[in-house]
Formats: sequence, C-alpha cells, structure tokens
Amino acid sequence: MKENPLNSLMNPRSIATVGAGNNPTKMGTIQALSIVKDGYRGKFYPIHPSEQTVLGHKAYPSVFELPETPDLAIFIVPTDQVIGLMEDFGKIGTRRAVVITAGFRETGSAGQELEEQLKECARRYGIRFLGPNCIGLLNSAISLNVTVMPLEGPPGLLGMASQSGTYVTQTLPYLKKRGIRFSKAISLGNEADIDINDALAYLGEDEQTKAIALYIEGLKDPARFLQIAREITPRKPVIAQYVGGTAAGARAGSSHTGAMAGPDHLYDGLFQQAGIIRVYSVEDLYGLGWALATQPHLKGKRIGVITNSGGPGTAISDTCNAGGLEVPIFSKRLQEQIRPHIPPHGARANPVDLTFFLDIQAISVTIPELVIQSGEVDGIVLHGAMGTGFMNQIYTHAGEMFGVPRDEFLESFREDTTAAMELPKKSGVPFLVSSFFDESDDFTTAYREHGIPVYDAPEKAARAMVALWKYRQIRERRLETAPALPPAAGEAAALIAEAVKRGVPFLDEFASKKVLAAYGIPIGAEELAHTAEEAVETAGRLGYPVVLKGCSEEFAHKTGRGLIYLNLPDGAAVRRSFKAIREAAEKEIPVLVARMVRGERELVAGAIRQPGFGPCVMFGLGGIFTEALRDTVFRLAPLSRLDALEMLEGIRAKELLGEFRGMPAVDREALAGILQKSGNLLLLHPEIREIDLNPIIIEGSRPVVVDALITF
Amino acid sequence: MKENPLNSLMNPRSIATVGAGNNPTKMGTIQALSIVKDGYRGKFYPIHPSEQTVLGHKAYPSVFELPETPDLAIFIVPTDQVIGLMEDFGKIGTRRAVVITAGFRETGSAGQELEEQLKECARRYGIRFLGPNCIGLLNSAISLNVTVMPLEGPPGLLGMASQSGTYVTQTLPYLKKRGIRFSKAISLGNEADIDINDALAYLGEDEQTKAIALYIEGLKDPARFLQIAREITPRKPVIAQYVGGTAAGARAGSSHTGAMAGPDHLYDGLFQQAGIIRVYSVEDLYGLGWALATQPHLKGKRIGVITNSGGPGTAISDTCNAGGLEVPIFSKRLQEQIRPHIPPHGARANPVDLTFFLDIQAISVTIPELVIQSGEVDGIVLHGAMGTGFMNQIYTHAGEMFGVPRDEFLESFREDTTAAMELPKKSGVPFLVSSFFDESDDFTTAYREHGIPVYDAPEKAARAMVALWKYRQIRERRLETAPALPPAAGEAAALIAEAVKRGVPFLDEFASKKVLAAYGIPIGAEELAHTAEEAVETAGRLGYPVVLKGCSEEFAHKTGRGLIYLNLPDGAAVRRSFKAIREAAEKEIPVLVARMVRGERELVAGAIRQPGFGPCVMFGLGGIFTEALRDTVFRLAPLSRLDALEMLEGIRAKELLGEFRGMPAVDREALAGILQKSGNLLLLHPEIREIDLNPIIIEGSRPVVVDALITF
Repeated sequence: MKENPLNSLMNPRSIATVGAGNNPTKMGTIQALSIVKDGYRGKFYPIHPSEQTVLGHKAYPSVFELPETPDLAIFIVPTDQVIGLMEDFGKIGTRRAVVITAGFRETGSAGQELEEQLKECARRYGIRFLGPNCIGLLNSAISLNVTVMPLEGPPGLLGMASQSGTYVTQTLPYLKKRGIRFSKAISLGNEADIDINDALAYLGEDEQTKAIALYIEGLKDPARFLQIAREITPRKPVIAQYVGGTAAGARAGSSHTGAMAGPDHLYDGLFQQAGIIRVYSVEDLYGLGWALATQPHLKGKRIGVITNSGGPGTAISDTCNAGGLEVPIFSKRLQEQIRPHIPPHGARANPVDLTFFLDIQAISVTIPELVIQSGEVDGIVLHGAMGTGFMNQIYTHAGEMFGVPRDEFLESFREDTTAAMELPKKSGVPFLVSSFFDESDDFTTAYREHGIPVYDAPEKAARAMVALWKYRQIRERRLETAPALPPAAGEAAALIAEAVKRGVPFLDEFASKKVLAAYGIPIGAEELAHTAEEAVETAGRLGYPVVLKGCSEEFAHKTGRGLIYLNLPDGAAVRRSFKAIREAAEKEIPVLVARMVRGERELVAGAIRQPGFGPCVMFGLGGIFTEALRDTVFRLAPLSRLDALEMLEGIRAKELLGEFRGMPAVDREALAGILQKSGNLLLLHPEIREIDLNPIIIEGSRPVVVDALITF
Repeated sequence: MKENPLNSLMNPRSIATVGAGNNPTKMGTIQALSIVKDGYRGKFYPIHPSEQTVLGHKAYPSVFELPETPDLAIFIVPTDQVIGLMEDFGKIGTRRAVVITAGFRETGSAGQELEEQLKECARRYGIRFLGPNCIGLLNSAISLNVTVMPLEGPPGLLGMASQSGTYVTQTLPYLKKRGIRFSKAISLGNEADIDINDALAYLGEDEQTKAIALYIEGLKDPARFLQIAREITPRKPVIAQYVGGTAAGARAGSSHTGAMAGPDHLYDGLFQQAGIIRVYSVEDLYGLGWALATQPHLKGKRIGVITNSGGPGTAISDTCNAGGLEVPIFSKRLQEQIRPHIPPHGARANPVDLTFFLDIQAISVTIPELVIQSGEVDGIVLHGAMGTGFMNQIYTHAGEMFGVPRDEFLESFREDTTAAMELPKKSGVPFLVSSFFDESDDFTTAYREHGIPVYDAPEKAARAMVALWKYRQIRERRLETAPALPPAAGEAAALIAEAVKRGVPFLDEFASKKVLAAYGIPIGAEELAHTAEEAVETAGRLGYPVVLKGCSEEFAHKTGRGLIYLNLPDGAAVRRSFKAIREAAEKEIPVLVARMVRGERELVAGAIRQPGFGPCVMFGLGGIFTEALRDTVFRLAPLSRLDALEMLEGIRAKELLGEFRGMPAVDREALAGILQKSGNLLLLHPEIREIDLNPIIIEGSRPVVVDALITF
C-alpha cells in the first residue's frame, strides 16, 4: 500500500509559514498564533519580507534562507503568489504543504486553470498538499493547531475530515462547550491533491481516532471512497453528513469548493454500502460522532432509562423505541432493589423516574449501578443528574435565606463526583447523559471531562444510543469483495457493437433480453415472429397463454400505443393481435411472441451510469407503482453477493419478498444475481448508458425479466 | 361558549399556598419563592401551622383564618392532605386551585380512587383545578411564576401547555440562554379537571401568545382537541411533540401522568387534520415554536441565504430545499449590487458567501438589506454574524499583542448593533439566524433580545424556516365543518340489528355491501345465487366476465381458500366455479355473483373504533401492497369533504390518483365521499367496530368497492 501523504503532513517536525506577520488582525498571523500558542513542540519558521521576528520567532526573508528544509509549508498569501512559493519550497526539498489561500477552482474557469498549474508544480517536486481554499488542520496528539481558533483541552478521540473549513475551526469553541474533542481534524478545501479519501484512510489507520466524522459536499471518486470506507467501518465507526443532494445544496457546494455533488439517493446507497451512518446536521455529526468515539460497543438493544422527570424519560423511551431499541420492563427483583432509593410515587419499571427528587447519589450512582449489575440492559440513558447548575437557580431566589455568597453556596453543594464518573467506565456498557444544565453544572462538566457525552436534550441522548445500535449492526454485517468480472459475452458484445455502429439510441426488447440472457439473467421464453402464421406456430410451441409485443428500436416504450397484447389464449387471438400490432405500428415490424409470465409481485431493477459517480445498480418495487412510490435503493457496481442481498432488504416493501399472502418466498439468490449481473454489464460494456429491467415478475418464487431496455 | 377556567386561574389577584415555609430546600418553599421574587403584584397568603411569617409575608395557621378568600389556592402538601384542603378552600369560596402534590392516578388503582375523590370534592364546590402531579404555571404578563426555577427577562410570545412539568420549569434556564420566552406556560399533570384542551383553548384566545407549543403524552378527548385546534390553527400556529406512539413511550407516559396514549399513526393523522405542526424533540418544540411566535408570515418559498462560511451556507440551502423551500439564483442586477461588499472569491448568487471576512456590517446590514429590497426572496437565513464571541477567541492567542485586558479588548470591538436589529423588523420578512457563538457574543445576544431566533446550528435555522413554510400552508388551507350526520338508513339498521341479535361477529360480504350501498357507497352489481343455474342466470343478466365468491359469515377472509373465482367468461365456467366453491366450503353456502370490476389501481379504505380515540377513517394504497407498504393515512370522524380530499393527498403514492400511465384521474369527489360515509357509518351505528373496504378498484376514473367486511 502506498504511504498516505497525511502521515507526514499531520506530523511535521518543522513548519514554515508564509503570510504570517505581527499584525494579529491578519488571518496569516492568527493562524500562525495557533501554531505557536497551542503547544506544538516542533520548529517554527516564519518567512517574512521585512520583520526580524514574527510572534517571537526569528523570521526569514525568503524560502532560500531557511536554516533547514521544513517538513511542512503553509501558505496564507495572495492567490498569485502561491505557485511561485510552491516552486521555491519544491526546490529546497519540502514535500508537504497546506494552501490556505482561496481563489482557485471555486471561482470559475480562470481559477480552475490556476489550480491545474498549482497541481502540476507540486507534482513536479513530489509535493503533496492540502487545499487550496482550506482552513488547515489539527493534530491534538502533538498539539498542532493550524486553524484560526484556539485548541484547548486534552487530546480527543473523534477524527474529522471536512469539505468546510468552518467545521474544523469556527466550531472549536462550540465543541469545547460540549466537551467534544478532536483527535485529528482536516480541512480539505478544493482537494486539488490530497482528498477526502486520503483523509478517511488516514483517520482509519490513526490509533488515537476512535470514530470518524465526515462533512461532504461531493465526492470526486466515490468508488475509492467506498473501498476505503468498507475497509474501515467493520472496525471503526464512520458518520457522515452529505449536503449536495438537493439542487440548492449542489449549487451552493459547487460555489464553495467546486465540489461535484450527486443525487441524494445515490449517496444514501453509497453510505449504506460503505457501512457509514448518515446524519442530517452538523450537530449530529459531532454529537452522535462523539458517542461513537467514546462509548464501548452496544451489545444488545435493551436500554435502561433513568430520569428525574417523566417528560424526558418518556421522550427518551419513545425515541429509543422508534429507533429500534427496547426499553424492557425490569424484573420484579430489580424493581424491588430500586424501590428504597426512589420516592413512593416514583416509577421503577423502566424508565426509573425519581421524580423531582434531589438525591444526586441515587440518580447518578446507586440506581444506574443496580440496573447495570442486573444484566437486564445493554446501555443506559440518564437524564437529570444535576448539581450546582440547579442549585445556582435556587440561589437566585433563595440566596438571602442562605446568607452566604453564591460561590460559597454552590461550593457547599458540590458533590463528590468520583463514584458517578467511575461507574460508566467500570460498567462496560454505553452510558449517555442528557441534561438541561450546561457547563455551569458540576455534573455536566464532570461527565464531559470523563468522556461521557452530555446532550442538551433527551431525544439527542436517545438518538446517540440509536447510532450506537446502528453501528452494532454495521459491525456485525458480513462483507465480501465483489467477485472478479466475468469475461464479456461474445454474443452480447456483437449485438452491442452492431447497434452502436448503426447509431441507434437503444437495443430493442428482444435484443436487450438477448444481451441479458448472455450473462445468465433469467428472461421468459420468447421468439420473434415476422408473420401471423409464424406467431401462431411459435405460440403453440411456447404454450398458451402468450403475450405479443411489437418489437422495434423505434418504440422504446410500448405501453398505451396498442403494441402489447397480454394473456392470449389461442391461435385466433394471436392472429388478431398480430394484425392489430402491425396496424398500430403502421409498419411491418417484427413481433415478439412470449410465454405469459404470471405473478402478482412485480419488481424493477436496473443499472445507470451517473456522471461523476460510476455505474450504479438500482432495485425497487415495480409495476405501475414504480413511479408513484419510488421505493428504490441504489448501490455502486460491482456488487458482491452480500451487497445485492442487502439491497433486497433496503426497500420499504421488503415484506413482499418473503412468504406473502400464500405466495412462496422470492428466490433471493436469483434476484441478487440479476442485480450483480446488471452492474457487471455496465462495467463490461462501456457503451451502455442504462439498463432498465421493468418489470421483473416473480413467478412462483422465481424472478423473470419480462421487459427490458438497454440504452446507449 | 363556556368561560375557560384558566382565564381566572392564570390571573389571580390573590394566592394562598399550603406547603411553603422558610426552609429553602423544600419544594413548597422553592415554589413560593418564585411567586414572591419574580414580580407578581397580587396578594400572597402563605398558610403555615407554626411560622408567623413565610418568606417575609404574614402566615396564617389555617384556611379559615385568611383575611380574604384567595382567588387561587396552591397545594404542595403530602398526598393525604390534599382532599381535606380542597374542602376547606371550597368552604371559604376559593374557586381555582393548583395541585402540585403527586401520588394519584399515576401510581395505580388506589391513587386513581383518590383522584376520583379529589375531583368529586372539587366538583361539589365548583372548584376548577390544575393537576394533581403538576409543577404549576407561568404567566409572564403579570410576572406570576409558580414553578421551581426563576423566571427572568421580559414577557414572551410562546405559549406552552405541557404534560410534563419539566418543560415549564427545569428548562427555564435552558430557554433563557436561547432567548426563548414564554407568554404563558401550563403544567397539566394528571389533568383530573383542567386538561390540555382547556389549555389549548386558553392559549388560542390569549393575545400575548403568538404561537402555541404542546408536549403530549396522550389525549383523553381527541375529538374535542381536534375541534379546538382547528379553530385556532388558521390564525395562530400550533406545534406539538407526541411521545406516546411507541410501546415504550406509551408505557413511560402512563407511569408518569397516567396518560392514555394511542398509536403514532393516529396522532399523525390527528395533527394533520388539526393543522398542527408535529416535531420529534423538545428542542424543536421550543426552537421552531419560537420562530413561529416571533416571525412575520412567510409569504412565499424563496429564501435568501447569507453566510460567512461555505459549509453552513450549503447545509442551510440543502435543508431548505429538502423541506420544500427554494434558494433561487439572484438576478444579475442583485449580484452586481452585492459584488462590492464581498471579497472577490466570495459567492453572490445565493447563498451569498462572504467567506472568512470580518465585516460585520456587510453581513448583518448591507447585504441582507440589498437582498430583501430586491424583492427576490421571501425570507432570510443568516449565518456568521459574529462579534465579541469571535474576538474573544482571537484574544486567547493574541491578547498580549494587543496589550490591553480582555474586557477592554472586547469592548473596543463591540459594534453598534442598532441597524442590524432594525433591519428584520422593518423588512417584514422572516429573518432567522444561525451562529456557533453563544450568548457571549454581542450579536447573538442582541438578536435574541430583539426577538430574532438564533440557532446553534445552521440546519436548525433552516428547519425553522421550513416550519414557517408549513404554517403558511396550514394558514392557506380551506377548512369546513363536517356536515350533519345523515339519518340512519333503515335497511342498514335492520341488517345490523339482525346480525347483532344473532350474535355473529361480522356481516358477510353481501350484507356488508348492502349496508354500504344504503349510504351511497358505490359497490359493483352483484346478487346472491343458491344454485348453479341461478348463478348462470344472474351472470347472464350482469354481463360477463363475472366473479363468483362463497358468501358466508363463517368466512371472513376468503383468499387462499378456493372460495373466489375471478374473470369467468361464460356459463360453463360459472357452473364449474359454483360447484368448486361449494366443495371448498364443504357446505351449501350462498354464492355471490358479481360483475368483474376491472382496473389497475387498487385502494383501501376503512373505519375503526380505536379505544380512547373515537371512530377513525383510514385510506391507503390497496391490493397486495396494503400490508407490505403501509401507505395509509388516518383522520378522526366525522370528515368534511375537504378533510376527505386532504386524506387523498396524504399517501405517498398519491401520484396514482391523478392521470397516470394512460389512465384517467380518479374521481376524487367519489373517493372522498366513500371516506366520509365510512366514518359516518361508525358514528351512526355504534354496534360496528370496524369497516374494511379492500380493495376499492378504480374502474376508469370511478372507485368501486369490490370487497368489504363489517365487523362488530
């Protein structure tokens, strides 16, 4: 495997900056301050045309006067200086750079041109770089901060790769308040060289990083992304927000970093295939990501809910249950153990509701411990462990009655949090907290310092538990590599080549199905007839009832044009229908005679080449409901057998595939085979733009492709 | 209309409390402190057995020694004292009470008994009361606070009625931090007397309340709730969280306040019918509720997005677009006007992205003003108006370079926010802000003080705008009252009475359809036959092809039992099928001969009596997909014509109802009529438990009920 360029870029022994001076209102200086102030212990070389020192460090007038070759160069300079500087650093042997400067691809064609030149220059010197148009990076393991805001607190566990610089810098104070700490964070900018795939692979290997959060506006190479993510997700959780799936999101992203976005349903499928948990807000990206980074694995779905208030307890239970978790009724024995620790009107069946009862030891230690030790739950959500935050409110009204200053008052209520903080650690089960009291509360703060997530709403704690449950399923799922592509089928290649040569936009139904059949996709028995007699003769051979369809490249869609006759019982009907088709077509087109395939369940499958995305396979509910219900799933080709089987489970109507209303279960392996082969077809035949198998009728348990169209 | 008991309860001129003393760690005292400390100007009479004064107010040893009859009595006493006290206050003429005390219905049957006694006692004296098991109330207009936490800041605009006390008290500091202020807030507790319907009606009439938030664990009287809500929602937004829709949520809620919860899909339908915006977290209840309370109406769907960062701008655009809003490309003219105010590499097409550019006037005044004045948008979402919060971060690193103390430094960057705060007010369009900087930032604080919501995540601001858009649609929808019930049809009543008398569990298909037909629900032509010859004769009269079905009260479900023969072309087939049905049934059951109704579109409708909910009407996608897709909507009966038409728009597959694949549009009026009549049937005939019309086949454009079952 090739060395990941981020290994060295994230761990430089020496850094040179260009664009930092001594004016603390300038971005370059602000960024350099982060390097010199936050504890980085490597060498720091500011390059400055006139200053003797910059931020207390000796400054150098040019790249060529540096005392050594820095491991990393950082550019925060006007756009037109970037390439010259890259050249200079190349000459002295620097091989890693971060280009903060904007004004490249995101600004249009002139900027794109400039970005190409920048890439070319870097390539010439073997320089690997982040950006341009990025905000830098963080490596908390070596206290390296190249962003514009201070990095405070101890090293973290959540790795972040972001196509928005804001999410690794403007949000640092936001994260600090919430006790969420990055291991590493990487702002990707325009991804002219190092891209999100490199960042994902890097974070996947980084031992400090326990979960990975991705903010995505668009992927340049979804296939590689998929490959890397699938290698990581069985052993480390990955969570992602994608914002390019709507017209407005795609346009906004493109003006931001020039990212190429794709339809939401393709990214949905990609994330599922990759085992990535998708979220729809940056708050969840961080908040659920933090639970995934800090908590042990959730081993089962039984959640214990402990609360000092019925509303939050009910909301947590409801949200857990709606997300697939259970809130089981506790055994009589456990309820009896809990009873002495709660008021008589409290609830103890799960949720345990202490009601408005200010025994912080009971809610934070005694009861959770009893519940965990019972073995009746796999995880805990706790609401209402509140200390000084609550007492601070009480003081506002009652202060004078206590006759002591606020600080002294609060100090007197400060409890020993040791036992409460040790409990989650020794319990080995996920422990998530919700509190309406913020960092001014001693329990909120203590939990956060001990890596226990505290959410500011009960539903968020519950949703974080649901995310742990999702990850449990991802971890458990079996994965296999897609098999090697089969050789291209000669007959199929010939049919395609011939059609392409003639310049027709698609293969007719008969030819389309011949191509499918050449790869083993099951189609019904059918033959072309050119006369009514031939049709009758064929029908007799195939067995009644039969279907007649006009078959010509001129008619991509036959419905509603008098070109299809179903369920014909005998020769007379075949003769009549043959004539009617010829009349409707107004020419002597061939007529397809096919055995009538019968089944109530209609599905649809296909494969499509999405620009910038590569061949994708589609599966869904078919028949007349296809358009109205849009119950479809997508995956990137090639598919492994397990990928294809997972697709079957992805539609809302998946119940149809089992034993259903007296019908046998669908042959899932056969159906999965159709999906795999559809994807392979696009990979083997680059001329094909789209394959549409609609409907696939389930005859008994067996899927049969009844109509098909191959488009170029 | 009867006077709402909350009118006087929320506005007492005098209050007596029982259970408050001078020990500030007791709940009663804490609650009384809120009354005496937060500015309430009415009389306050503590009742205390031994103390001379309580919280500086003269105390009275018993109810009977009070100097006047208090308007409101508040009980925070042990459970066994409540009824006696209610009696005492009844005797002196007090007519409103708040029972904070818990230990009633929520604890089981003994508590339920006690609650009945309490109600009886109150009824005897004409006392209307809140609780028991509640936390009290807030009326910010008169600075009345009967909760356990301080109420700070000026009066608010959001009215709250909550089945959890926490959400009107524990969250007060949470809300203060977020700039969200209640007009009135009511903790409902067990709703032994005053219930959520009274609270909703009260808040609907309250002029100070501009939007209403409801936290619901279960409704006792959904029909009255619906009626009240429908009267309010066309003129005032109502937003609700419901947490009783899962098994775990229902159980938790029941142990909390004894609430009777119902399935989620019924509440979903109820909220839609009522014009209530549903949310799934208390954060959204408050946060989106605050936007609805403070912002002018959103008149169209065009949103302008202004940001100092590409990521949040893209996420806002994506979230708006996914929620049905548009982020239109600005005109060339507007873009040219914006150009001089942003850096050259910024974006100006919408989103306007100033990039990392610290011109607070440009982002908070100049650009929003240009965008609003252009008339090209109907609302604004702004991210990144940050002042001292950002500079505070900068100071952490650069402080010593500036050589001034932090406060002085921040003060020097404090901008005049006047123009920025006036802009939203004078613009007349909704203006929502997102910022990662909290109340320590001067702009965040100023916006909040001026009633402009500031969200701590870009997606939340966008979702709040989507809520405004939802409300716009609710405001615009036409509503009508359900027509008066028709008289019960004699024939239907007779059939039902006869079956009930015989004690059968349901009507057979033929009789079921006779009942439907008596109310004008369209069924296909059909007759019962008792011999094969009779069947052939009937078929000839109805016209081939026909359907034969065994018809007996013994067979509620006929599928898969050899009791149905479809599409019979002639007399021979009828004769064969008749014989086969008799053989399958193993007895001489009557056989239904029906014209074969043809159509590809199958729908389902019905009506069901849900315990505690009243008759509900169901509509959905039918045929074999009914169970697999569960594409259904529900409403409470009786339905108006417009209610029924709205139901048709509520299914995912609604596209099927229009012109679809060469089929004509469904006759919506006829379909709506079926739904109305199904609901009426349950209201007219209390014996009926359930009506199931499945399938309804669309023949051409006309819906025909093809199978039906009426269950008792």
